[in-house]
Amino acid sequence: MTPTITAFERSPDRGKGLARDMRVRWALEEVGQPYKVRLVSFGAMKEPAHRALHPFGQIPTYEEGDLALFESGAIVFHIAERHAGLLPDGANARARAITWMFAALNTVEPPILDLQTTRFLEGDKTWYKQRLPVVEDRIRDRLGELSGRLGDGDWLDGAFSAGDLILVAVLLRLKASGILDEYPNLSAYVARGEARPAFRRAFDAQLAVFTGIPPTG
Amino acid sequence: MTPTITAFERSPDRGKGLARDMRVRWALEEVGQPYKVRLVSFGAMKEPAHRALHPFGQIPTYEEGDLALFESGAIVFHIAERHAGLLPDGANARARAITWMFAALNTVEPPILDLQTTRFLEGDKTWYKQRLPVVEDRIRDRLGELSGRLGDGDWLDGAFSAGDLILVAVLLRLKASGILDEYPNLSAYVARGEARPAFRRAFDAQLAVFTGIPPTG
Repeated sequence: MTPTITAFERSPDRGKGLARDMRVRWALEEVGQPYKVRLVSFGAMKEPAHRALHPFGQIPTYEEGDLALFESGAIVFHIAERHAGLLPDGANARARAITWMFAALNTVEPPILDLQTTRFLEGDKTWYKQRLPVVEDRIRDRLGELSGRLGDGDWLDGAFSAGDLILVAVLLRLKASGILDEYPNLSAYVARGEARPAFRRAFDAQLAVFTGIPPTG
Repeated sequence: MTPTITAFERSPDRGKGLARDMRVRWALEEVGQPYKVRLVSFGAMKEPAHRALHPFGQIPTYEEGDLALFESGAIVFHIAERHAGLLPDGANARARAITWMFAALNTVEPPILDLQTTRFLEGDKTWYKQRLPVVEDRIRDRLGELSGRLGDGDWLDGAFSAGDLILVAVLLRLKASGILDEYPNLSAYVARGEARPAFRRAFDAQLAVFTGIPPTG
């Protein structure tokens, strides 16, 4: 059965791959699973019909028969569990790949998201400019540790996994800030993710929603 | 094989159950799995030996034979996957319980953790008092949505699951702030979690590390 996901009718990032449907599209492309997309407006996201699917009134959601899921990390995990290609076969390697999914979402993403939240919700406050270096240094702490662990590896732990997919998607949020460039091995890691054919297909599909021009791919 | 977890030698919360080893202890108690604890100092956490287990130099870690994991959400999931009691049997119900684990960690916890991070790292800054209501209102947005979804249910989705375990552990961070009291159904939900015998055993065990007085059980 072809699953249906939801995405922004008009993405705040203008289709630059930062909305969270990108993670789900990328996972579906990696495993070769076709999917449908239902676009939702900011208004409709907060209405009861959408909140029945997503209690926090956000995107993406995932519907497949009588199963309805929300939260991009959980949806990527669901896809990874049911299709080959995103989790290694060995039990220990699989557990470690899942560990990186949680680490990317719960340890790496919060300080990075704070940079965007701060700009969006506190950009007009008196403290914004003074506080910015504090927020950025918190990100650098995490990136330094991550850079040390990645070393000169292509991916986090052997072959590309759902852990890499989520972590690359999280690090992509930093591109505009320039902070990622301070860590050459992390920049190269993100570029490797972006170069994957499945990433390109997913990126083009979400960009096409914004531009209205269908991907030629 | 009995797993070994790590915990703070001296927890910053003085054993009030807020350190992240609590989540892992609670999960192990729910499934009846004995475990060993290795205490680590703040200094040792940042040393190469511990960083080999945990790239971000934190606790908890989880070692079981030749498997080494970090990140509390991932460890709780690993325990839930291998032992009965924390994930429902049906495939769809199981996927929904996992969804709540990710939602608790990636959507609910970040604004809540920001309240503590702000106090700890920005408490002496000029903007701290002005910014505090902004941080608190972001938490209220999430709690309002969560409260609406929980309604008058005992747990998030049928029987108690790993999703409830993580969410209760996340909400516990708010106790001292008084914000949780504004949502009576969420307060009662957290109290139900705290009343579980497995929670009590885990809580007493982590408190005993701080007081030096073994739990009387």
